[in-house]
Amino acid sequence: MTGTIITIGDELLIGQVINTNQAFIAEQLNGVGVYVTSMVTVGDNESDILAAFHEAAIHADVVCVTGGLGPTHDDITKTVVCKFFYTELVMNEDVLATVRALMNRRNIPWLPSAEAQAMVPRSCTVLPNSVGTAPGMMFRHTRHGKKGYFVVLPGVPAEMKQIMTEHFLPLLAKGQKGNVVRHLTLKTTGIPESLLAQKIGDVASVTGTDGTMTLAFLPGPRGTRLRVTVRESDAARADEKLAAAGAVLQAKAGAFIYSSGSEDLEELVGILLRQKKLKIAVAESCTGGYLAHRITNVSGASDYFMRGYVTYSNEAKIDELGVPAVLIETHGAVSSEVAAAMAAGARETAKVDIAIATTGIAGPTGGTLQKPVGLLYVGFADEKSTTTRKFNLGGDRMIFKERASQAALDLLRKVLLGIEF
Amino acid sequence: MTGTIITIGDELLIGQVINTNQAFIAEQLNGVGVYVTSMVTVGDNESDILAAFHEAAIHADVVCVTGGLGPTHDDITKTVVCKFFYTELVMNEDVLATVRALMNRRNIPWLPSAEAQAMVPRSCTVLPNSVGTAPGMMFRHTRHGKKGYFVVLPGVPAEMKQIMTEHFLPLLAKGQKGNVVRHLTLKTTGIPESLLAQKIGDVASVTGTDGTMTLAFLPGPRGTRLRVTVRESDAARADEKLAAAGAVLQAKAGAFIYSSGSEDLEELVGILLRQKKLKIAVAESCTGGYLAHRITNVSGASDYFMRGYVTYSNEAKIDELGVPAVLIETHGAVSSEVAAAMAAGARETAKVDIAIATTGIAGPTGGTLQKPVGLLYVGFADEKSTTTRKFNLGGDRMIFKERASQAALDLLRKVLLGIEF
Repeated sequence: MTGTIITIGDELLIGQVINTNQAFIAEQLNGVGVYVTSMVTVGDNESDILAAFHEAAIHADVVCVTGGLGPTHDDITKTVVCKFFYTELVMNEDVLATVRALMNRRNIPWLPSAEAQAMVPRSCTVLPNSVGTAPGMMFRHTRHGKKGYFVVLPGVPAEMKQIMTEHFLPLLAKGQKGNVVRHLTLKTTGIPESLLAQKIGDVASVTGTDGTMTLAFLPGPRGTRLRVTVRESDAARADEKLAAAGAVLQAKAGAFIYSSGSEDLEELVGILLRQKKLKIAVAESCTGGYLAHRITNVSGASDYFMRGYVTYSNEAKIDELGVPAVLIETHGAVSSEVAAAMAAGARETAKVDIAIATTGIAGPTGGTLQKPVGLLYVGFADEKSTTTRKFNLGGDRMIFKERASQAALDLLRKVLLGIEF
Repeated sequence: MTGTIITIGDELLIGQVINTNQAFIAEQLNGVGVYVTSMVTVGDNESDILAAFHEAAIHADVVCVTGGLGPTHDDITKTVVCKFFYTELVMNEDVLATVRALMNRRNIPWLPSAEAQAMVPRSCTVLPNSVGTAPGMMFRHTRHGKKGYFVVLPGVPAEMKQIMTEHFLPLLAKGQKGNVVRHLTLKTTGIPESLLAQKIGDVASVTGTDGTMTLAFLPGPRGTRLRVTVRESDAARADEKLAAAGAVLQAKAGAFIYSSGSEDLEELVGILLRQKKLKIAVAESCTGGYLAHRITNVSGASDYFMRGYVTYSNEAKIDELGVPAVLIETHGAVSSEVAAAMAAGARETAKVDIAIATTGIAGPTGGTLQKPVGLLYVGFADEKSTTTRKFNLGGDRMIFKERASQAALDLLRKVLLGIEF
């Protein structure tokens, strides 16, 4: 099957917003064997939207539309969809109940515009939105005498993603047999892309040479993901090939691979802490709360995460964590000694099993020749010992925080798994 | 003038790469008065590229193409451009010299593929690339009897940007007089999009009725942005109109507007704290470090942000902030009383002027009928008093943190500005 993605919104055409929905949808459609051949963006303008719909319905089996479903005057997608499918808007009681419940939960007074969110085209199948007020809407269009899918989703990424993954993709996958595209993604951290490529060496040793598999390096601030893609006529054969490729990659770069699923490092660390019944605290300087934020992003983190200290000033390090003032005077706040004292102090004060600490220079200012922007010390303390590790990370302030929190979590992972670090 | 942006590349169609070039080009074209009406992405496939070219040349005065100019087998844009303009590739000595110099500088051995980079369509104007090997190529196409611009740029962002800003935009701007597009964006928070729309009422009261101005509502987890766009023949007149529209919006919804520029709430609050020479601490439960993270994202935050407490457990609230245990037993950790005690405790322990605190239920678990997921209390303490505010925020865990930190920062902003809250 072929696909076209249509994103709607003036904010895209003036370049105010980067279109991340396109890539997400493309990746998801690919995953269920839909070969996306074009992506189109138009403004909140009836004739442009209609033209895009007509063009897409001629060329694609799957047409995926996002944007313009909000409650304000510039959101016209729903009316244009009605014109395109020669139908009209009718009240949908299920959607109405959902919208009402959502607004009650948020204490928002009931408005006519909210009621309008529950109006849907008569001929569509409603795909429920559990995050916001605009439901997804699915139609079947006819292309070369065969039924295609025409789905309309809200442009708010969280809402689009929920409806896409929970409702539309399962529907699509059911209708798709005999043409399988599968991906295996291995998440690595702690090694630059170029070194990782060197470790892996000849790509054909992973993918074979029959052209059914590809290997992609996807670098990001949290590390490089390795993605193997296989296209096969048979699902079992595809899974077999992926497993073999995964084994080769594990053999070559296993020490740097922390996940072969979608989980982030904070989730993995959370699972390990819960398994081992260990309680943790963190003490942060340069990561400024970001490390605690990542750990607490995991639902249920309160089972093992007890508390965090964001000790941004020297006084805070001394008062809260008992770091000796003389240590800061002698070695500076960004030093191995202070990282160790922060971790040990946090562990003791918080009465936990394990503590990790970060101190470094996030930049853009504050760097020196001896201690440049990007320098990081991670401290680790458990009942047995206190250790530290030094890193040189680049990047702007946010990328530094991303890399620094990743380095701290990866150190924690290695300790918990008994891997040398 | 109208514009179409065509981006070419299989990596975009499988969602491997987020298309940031589109937004950059759109913003630049808008800035010189080119009204972008559509953006199209196709793969490295001759017939799809040709179809996109034909369509664009019919509808747009300015056609901007990026991607597929590299030296590998899948880069076919240049040959397709030749077909489209009925021309052929010829060696360009200037480009050849530039490519040779670049490869020398980088110590890359000379390859036939490098020589191919210096072949350009006979009828084009070369726009030099000082960053990489693929030059930009400009053509004039005819649309409704008038000359348009058809420009082809490399897909590597740094190369595209250099050629765009140094060569193509100046050319365009010269040909473009008396057509100006300007935007004003006002950032609001603390009010749902639907209520904001009601407050603003008739859109024409903001934009007038002569068709030169539009108003867009752009919702996100941190609030709704209001964007006014004006298209005018005269820059001074455009700015005047924008200022008038901005004044109307301020009069109608001023209490909810925190910025008319690009700055985030944490930057604004940082500026105010520095101006007033106030030191701050935060005490977080449900936001789990995210509030401190946002505050410390601002370079120089260490001037006013002293420390943060992530008191995830009850013990942490009692130990670190001196919250009376009886308060937690009586009212629960998620209560106005505990929010107040957290803020007052943090202020005292950290010896700062101001403290803010958050306690709430981020979900997805932990909600009850009385205290549902999304409930938030923000506490605020200064030398004069301690107050709290209650919010009902929805969303998944991350969106909740986003909204909760925004609510806390907005409360802080209002206190600092002496606005009632």
